[in-house]
Amino acid sequence: MSYCLGILTRQGIVFASDSRTNAGIDQINTSRKMHTINIPGERTFVLLSSGSLSLTQSVLTLAQQEFERGEGLAVVPNFYQAARCIGEHIRTIDKMDRQYLEKDHIAFSVNFILGGQIKGESPQLYLIYAQGNPLQATPDCPYLQIGEIKYGKPILDRGIRYEATSLEEAALCALISLDSTMKSNKSVGPPIDLLIYKNDEFDILHRTRFEANDPQLMTIRSLWEQKLKQAIREMPPLNLV
Amino acid sequence: MSYCLGILTRQGIVFASDSRTNAGIDQINTSRKMHTINIPGERTFVLLSSGSLSLTQSVLTLAQQEFERGEGLAVVPNFYQAARCIGEHIRTIDKMDRQYLEKDHIAFSVNFILGGQIKGESPQLYLIYAQGNPLQATPDCPYLQIGEIKYGKPILDRGIRYEATSLEEAALCALISLDSTMKSNKSVGPPIDLLIYKNDEFDILHRTRFEANDPQLMTIRSLWEQKLKQAIREMPPLNLV
Repeated sequence: MSYCLGILTRQGIVFASDSRTNAGIDQINTSRKMHTINIPGERTFVLLSSGSLSLTQSVLTLAQQEFERGEGLAVVPNFYQAARCIGEHIRTIDKMDRQYLEKDHIAFSVNFILGGQIKGESPQLYLIYAQGNPLQATPDCPYLQIGEIKYGKPILDRGIRYEATSLEEAALCALISLDSTMKSNKSVGPPIDLLIYKNDEFDILHRTRFEANDPQLMTIRSLWEQKLKQAIREMPPLNLV
Repeated sequence: MSYCLGILTRQGIVFASDSRTNAGIDQINTSRKMHTINIPGERTFVLLSSGSLSLTQSVLTLAQQEFERGEGLAVVPNFYQAARCIGEHIRTIDKMDRQYLEKDHIAFSVNFILGGQIKGESPQLYLIYAQGNPLQATPDCPYLQIGEIKYGKPILDRGIRYEATSLEEAALCALISLDSTMKSNKSVGPPIDLLIYKNDEFDILHRTRFEANDPQLMTIRSLWEQKLKQAIREMPPLNLV
């Protein structure tokens, strides 16, 4: 399992991802699920992946190779086309691998979050489904999640507003959301990658990796638990029969 | 979908359930998922159900009919046998209905939470699976959930401790857990039934139904959102590159 999310705000985009991969509960590894493709000053792409690691790696390899040839993400005229570009690579891998996976009853499972900015446009955030079609984050629905999405959703529903939430608050919500998920599903695990993209930076400037024993992460975890308990204690008593 | 939970604490048990049932998104109804069977002063049972309404109704009907004949829950010598009794009724309905459901690719989906107390024992809380086998709540794992369980789990993980949590706090956590779930999954919906069983009461004394527009529920919802936002604002700033 994986858990990755992107949060679009008025000020920019926050990306966060876990790093645990597993092929069965007895084959657990660590693999970065956050990847960047960047032409400083011109275009910046951040990709988060969930699903079968073999499939997501293949999609990323095709995207990276195409970029290095000066095609694909290197030249797409707008972000919608960038999302379509990743979708096409998913469909290419679908044609190559799906039928062989399905022979052994293995699902064709691959999802991406793609966010960033191309000069001339505002920052954008997309989810790209296993079928290759894109879904865009909007001010009404400013965050997108892939993988084990349910445990970490309530904090986002309560904490995130496109207009009002600062990038620092969004980053904190993302870490709390990931921490809640890791507490409930052990197939989601550290290190956590966090990346903050501020509007019009056109570069990767704020990227942090939190290991399992990172002091900041441990402080967030214990402080958040304290604050939730305090919030419960401070609620007005229920008036029951 | 449904969402029901039971929370076992040192002081007693809290039960909560939603009331939405649906057979497809275009066939939505309201049905109570909390049922009680009670011999005052002697034995008290609270049943919460999720799964196919037709199946859970059949199981409840068999349990109720047996009780009224002075058998089953009316006479089982201990709570483990009470859980086994519900399990046997699930297996009876399995024999009657499963093969016909599966012909039309409909899953045999039925789960129960059973809690309460039989005189001579401490209060107990069980989950009974669709296969009929019981799982008991323990001080280490003091709450049990059925149905749409993921959205509402983080607040329970943080808020519930068997020894330390009061029944009032547990009831509040249960309502917040249900509210978080209703916010994310529209197939979970009001009214919410809440029942508090205090140790050695051997009766149904604290039972409340919250309609969708219940003032207490609306206060909890808005106050909880305020408190979460305040907690986020009060966290120390992230120290990022």
